[in-house]
Amino acid sequence: MPKPVKPAWVIDKERARRTASQESVWLFGIHAVRDALTNPQREKLRLVLTKNAADRLGEAISEGGLEPEIVDPRKFSVPIDESSVHQGAALEVKPLDWGSLEDLAAAGEGAPLVVLLDRVTDPHNVGAVLRSAEVFGARAVIAPHRHSAPETGALAKTASGSLERQPYLRVGNLSDAMEKLKAMGYTLLGLDGEAGTSLAEGLATTGGRPVGLVLGAEGPGLREKTRETCDLLVRIPAAGDFGSLNVSNAAAVALYAAANR
Amino acid sequence: MPKPVKPAWVIDKERARRTASQESVWLFGIHAVRDALTNPQREKLRLVLTKNAADRLGEAISEGGLEPEIVDPRKFSVPIDESSVHQGAALEVKPLDWGSLEDLAAAGEGAPLVVLLDRVTDPHNVGAVLRSAEVFGARAVIAPHRHSAPETGALAKTASGSLERQPYLRVGNLSDAMEKLKAMGYTLLGLDGEAGTSLAEGLATTGGRPVGLVLGAEGPGLREKTRETCDLLVRIPAAGDFGSLNVSNAAAVALYAAANR
Repeated sequence: MPKPVKPAWVIDKERARRTASQESVWLFGIHAVRDALTNPQREKLRLVLTKNAADRLGEAISEGGLEPEIVDPRKFSVPIDESSVHQGAALEVKPLDWGSLEDLAAAGEGAPLVVLLDRVTDPHNVGAVLRSAEVFGARAVIAPHRHSAPETGALAKTASGSLERQPYLRVGNLSDAMEKLKAMGYTLLGLDGEAGTSLAEGLATTGGRPVGLVLGAEGPGLREKTRETCDLLVRIPAAGDFGSLNVSNAAAVALYAAANR
Repeated sequence: MPKPVKPAWVIDKERARRTASQESVWLFGIHAVRDALTNPQREKLRLVLTKNAADRLGEAISEGGLEPEIVDPRKFSVPIDESSVHQGAALEVKPLDWGSLEDLAAAGEGAPLVVLLDRVTDPHNVGAVLRSAEVFGARAVIAPHRHSAPETGALAKTASGSLERQPYLRVGNLSDAMEKLKAMGYTLLGLDGEAGTSLAEGLATTGGRPVGLVLGAEGPGLREKTRETCDLLVRIPAAGDFGSLNVSNAAAVALYAAANR
């Protein structure tokens, strides 16, 4: 029996309900829009381009399969931050669905590695962490739903393409996710400038086992509960008494050390 | 014989000439202004504050020894970028004088380490590199006068205090500076994603000798002449075929590896 065809009004209503239940995001800038257009996993809703941007995006537009709305550069008006450098290209999309923590943390080749971010709210920092996580082959970057940088245009721009490829998984409760990872055999190392153990010493204790690197926001650092749930706290050795690493730089160093242990 | 006292108009004229010959910089934001005020090496010219910012800066103002101009928050008008988060605090200063390359590169304890930036123009990237350079004890961050991020308020804000402590030396010609470092016994490792040697292998060849880490801007990378002047090109190993590190993250990884070799 052929599948019954839904009337248009049912399809529209269903789409409206889906849109309302799942927030959409505006990506902007030639690179971020091209990366999302050519990602078949990405659900695309609206594409707004100047003539010039449409020429630059060329083939990516047909690959995206979405009819662009060509607008006058002086009338380019989409809901993105005014100071954003959009280059005449904006694409409304749904956040990517990366599946379950268990599947992500178990998949792939080599010694598994994940990054957990405890309330890192700056989209530029999270974007840079996604870039580094992709380079060093981390399975996922995991962050709580609340008090974390959402998947936005600014994050996508800093992530420089990696947002389309590097799983960025938002979870309801970070400690629960940490417990699940520990049950899967992960050793969780929390980055803490006051820790007595160095990053290298901490990694040496993990052998070939899966590793989770846990980083907090600059200033507050790891929350009490997060800190307690880590297996070990480690510090990146500093030469002097002053200064501290930006969180994305600390993540890059820890990822490099973990990937090359 | 007592030193003759200069008349006020001579002092004013001399000051005007000095100001014209040497560009000044506006720093902004509570943290950057506090760090500069409490740095005795920093030549301070004008301090513009809201009443609220003056209360927050408290003792730093008297340490700075400069009479603040208290302004109405609605009339806060200094020559900084409109989108800057100035928090009601702005300080006009002279760039810091870090002395000569030879003195900087020879000074300090432990195995000497410097960073060279080849045309890295983004102030946020250079600010983050200064932070990491301070943490890992690099003697200096060296960049050419032209086509590099100047010492600006945006750079100071990202540098998060390290601008006042971490030498950022601008040189006329980067290749000449590289040759000087080589003559002083430095081994220069150029970061290049296409290099056949890994960062760890490259560092292993340097023994306890001084090391210079050379990084180019994202996209263009190292210029031909810079590349040729390096002793060895090295790459940070990547897990997959996609993605690349942000330049400040690459610098942090290289500094960590060099400081912990």
